Amino acid sequence: MAAPNGALRRATAEGSGRHIECATMSTASFLIALIAIFIAAKVFGEIAERLGQPAVLGELIGGVAIGVSGLRLVDPHDVTIHLLSELGVILLLFVIGLETDLKKLMQVGGSATAVAVIGVALPLAGGFAFGELLGMSRMVSLFLGASLTATSVGITARVLSDLGHLKDDASQIILGAAVVDDIIGLVLLTIVGTLAEGGALTVLGIGRIVLIAFGFVLLAIVIGSQLAPMLIRAIDRIKVARGLLFASIVFALALAYVAQRVGSAIIIGSFAAGLVLARTHRGKDICREVHDVSQFFVPIFFVAVGAAIDFRTINWMGFALAAIGIVGKVLAGFVVWRKGMNRLVVGAGMIPRGEVGLIFAQIGLSTRLLSAELYSAVTVMIMITTFVAPPLLRRLLAQETPGELESGSADIVMDAPADDAGS
Amino acid sequence: MAAPNGALRRATAEGSGRHIECATMSTASFLIALIAIFIAAKVFGEIAERLGQPAVLGELIGGVAIGVSGLRLVDPHDVTIHLLSELGVILLLFVIGLETDLKKLMQVGGSATAVAVIGVALPLAGGFAFGELLGMSRMVSLFLGASLTATSVGITARVLSDLGHLKDDASQIILGAAVVDDIIGLVLLTIVGTLAEGGALTVLGIGRIVLIAFGFVLLAIVIGSQLAPMLIRAIDRIKVARGLLFASIVFALALAYVAQRVGSAIIIGSFAAGLVLARTHRGKDICREVHDVSQFFVPIFFVAVGAAIDFRTINWMGFALAAIGIVGKVLAGFVVWRKGMNRLVVGAGMIPRGEVGLIFAQIGLSTRLLSAELYSAVTVMIMITTFVAPPLLRRLLAQETPGELESGSADIVMDAPADDAGS
Repeated sequence: MAAPNGALRRATAEGSGRHIECATMSTASFLIALIAIFIAAKVFGEIAERLGQPAVLGELIGGVAIGVSGLRLVDPHDVTIHLLSELGVILLLFVIGLETDLKKLMQVGGSATAVAVIGVALPLAGGFAFGELLGMSRMVSLFLGASLTATSVGITARVLSDLGHLKDDASQIILGAAVVDDIIGLVLLTIVGTLAEGGALTVLGIGRIVLIAFGFVLLAIVIGSQLAPMLIRAIDRIKVARGLLFASIVFALALAYVAQRVGSAIIIGSFAAGLVLARTHRGKDICREVHDVSQFFVPIFFVAVGAAIDFRTINWMGFALAAIGIVGKVLAGFVVWRKGMNRLVVGAGMIPRGEVGLIFAQIGLSTRLLSAELYSAVTVMIMITTFVAPPLLRRLLAQETPGELESGSADIVMDAPADDAGS
Repeated sequence: MAAPNGALRRATAEGSGRHIECATMSTASFLIALIAIFIAAKVFGEIAERLGQPAVLGELIGGVAIGVSGLRLVDPHDVTIHLLSELGVILLLFVIGLETDLKKLMQVGGSATAVAVIGVALPLAGGFAFGELLGMSRMVSLFLGASLTATSVGITARVLSDLGHLKDDASQIILGAAVVDDIIGLVLLTIVGTLAEGGALTVLGIGRIVLIAFGFVLLAIVIGSQLAPMLIRAIDRIKVARGLLFASIVFALALAYVAQRVGSAIIIGSFAAGLVLARTHRGKDICREVHDVSQFFVPIFFVAVGAAIDFRTINWMGFALAAIGIVGKVLAGFVVWRKGMNRLVVGAGMIPRGEVGLIFAQIGLSTRLLSAELYSAVTVMIMITTFVAPPLLRRLLAQETPGELESGSADIVMDAPADDAGS
């Protein structure tokens, strides 16, 4: 029941090869990584909040401090850290889905889709033009454009939640648009990936990809809405210990798995699971219980994002790409035609880019279409957009409803300090 | 922000080698493993409880069902599953430490130490004699004996908690004895490991090993008792969101890390952390908050233990070793001299063996002292002792206080069904 000490553990691992198959983390370095992640998240998150910034900005900076550009206590590419951070973002989007009113989301569906489409088209065109201007090949230019398309919904959602604005109309548009543009990004990923590997694309093939991507979300919500109440009733009846929590999490993980299997994204699966479960009669209980567990995993995601940032890669093209990406999304925000809405907030909310952009870059690198320099430029673009959005959103939202920040109205995706003091 | 689909992910991983360094789990198989673990834990745990057995027995059987002897949905040797199950047992012993009254534990210290010493000596002698009888070398016989010594405190603690008997005097003796015999087991591990690698041992060397092993626990409790109140006061003052939870968990992980570094065991570190924090003025709050998080990880440990059981290894020597191990521990229980105490409960509580035995076996295998057959025999011994203890303890405890099981008085290490129904 106890772990062996260092020397013997190594002997065990090398000798029999049963315990650990390859050069991955030992228990000791796993413990160090977790300790570093939690301390960094809490200390820097607290500093950010005291400076009036969203806690997530602090968690990202905390990640930088202990990651590849800092103390190197956490290797964001280690498989266990990677999987735990994936679990973190799955649970984050699950909680955000649980807090989202599907009806309200549908009401802003038109605006959200418009923002998503324009917000994909402008950066795609801008990135493509940038590549052409520098005399790159069509394919390389396409890669650069595509890497600018998908918003990182996780960061934006955390910022809105940290600032207590998750239920605003503008936030609903941002959430909806971020989900739609993630789907478009995945469609682009499949198309560009196929082209990069030298494959041919037919109209029929593209149609199939689009159908699967959007069909999954629709089916998940329609079928899920039928299944979820039955699941909850069954759980209510058999009264397993913590049954509601585990059934909900299994439901979210299962939808995340199916989403990935059919070519959609894990977080779209768990977001859909949240939307569906929120409408059952135990929605509020589920939200509270899942939220308690998610507290543990969500910071791992944001610290890992920060830890992966490598300042040595900074180059001017990264700043140029970031500018194109920011302008494209901000302009897309002006598509919204509702009056009385701060359209800058919508655009600013769409700014952060994340893993989808990185995956484009990695495919480009592995197929030798992108040089190491261009790969770094995409990484820098992601870094800049990630750090620009939180303070910008905070400033725009503070103008809108002055004083709300001080009233401690943060949504419960991450607890406000007051919650803990009261316990 | 989204994960790529299967084909592209593989291309990414193979091409750039940035994301995943070696052939470990993909996100999809991680999700499947988690889904399988939670369903197995809850379904089999519930069945066990309906049959009047502790839930942990169901979780172990659930692990068998989805592990190497069953559906093979979970690979217990995968590094991420292994690390998460380590985190599970760290948090389990942390919660058990938080629920343990250090004073009460000290009061039974004499009995506990006696049970531990005799409970190590008898199986060690028995295993050694068994080897000699079969004509094995001294060293091999020593290995067999040593692999029988250390009780798996995790399984016993869960059983006692599931049955609502964690605060009994007998349970305090079992807990204390299990901690002491884990320390003795680690001392033996270092000694036998050194001998197996051909090293020489001096009396001074052995003395140093013993001093470190026991010194760590004493120092952790003495220094921890000074540091913990300061830590809690600081957390109370700065009011970070969920600060109490994260500070406590970081404290436990840090002690677990130090424990492993100095040659003690991770779970002894987290148990000591629990003992120390339980005595601060926020002890009850910490216990409740940590318990909520531990719910998620503890089943991973027990399901992983079950998943590692390989029925193909069963052979007669395993049964013989199990018999020696069971008789040795049960006899050790009779050392307790308090009147009115069910000494059979103490002995039965010491029966389960776990990782320490397995580590002995693995070192034996890697140094070619143990044949594959003897290695399997140790595995079978662990399997049998693990499955014998829960129903045996349940039967003995039910005789002692008939009806208590039905009154729903399970300790909070794992929630009783009633808790969930009430939420």
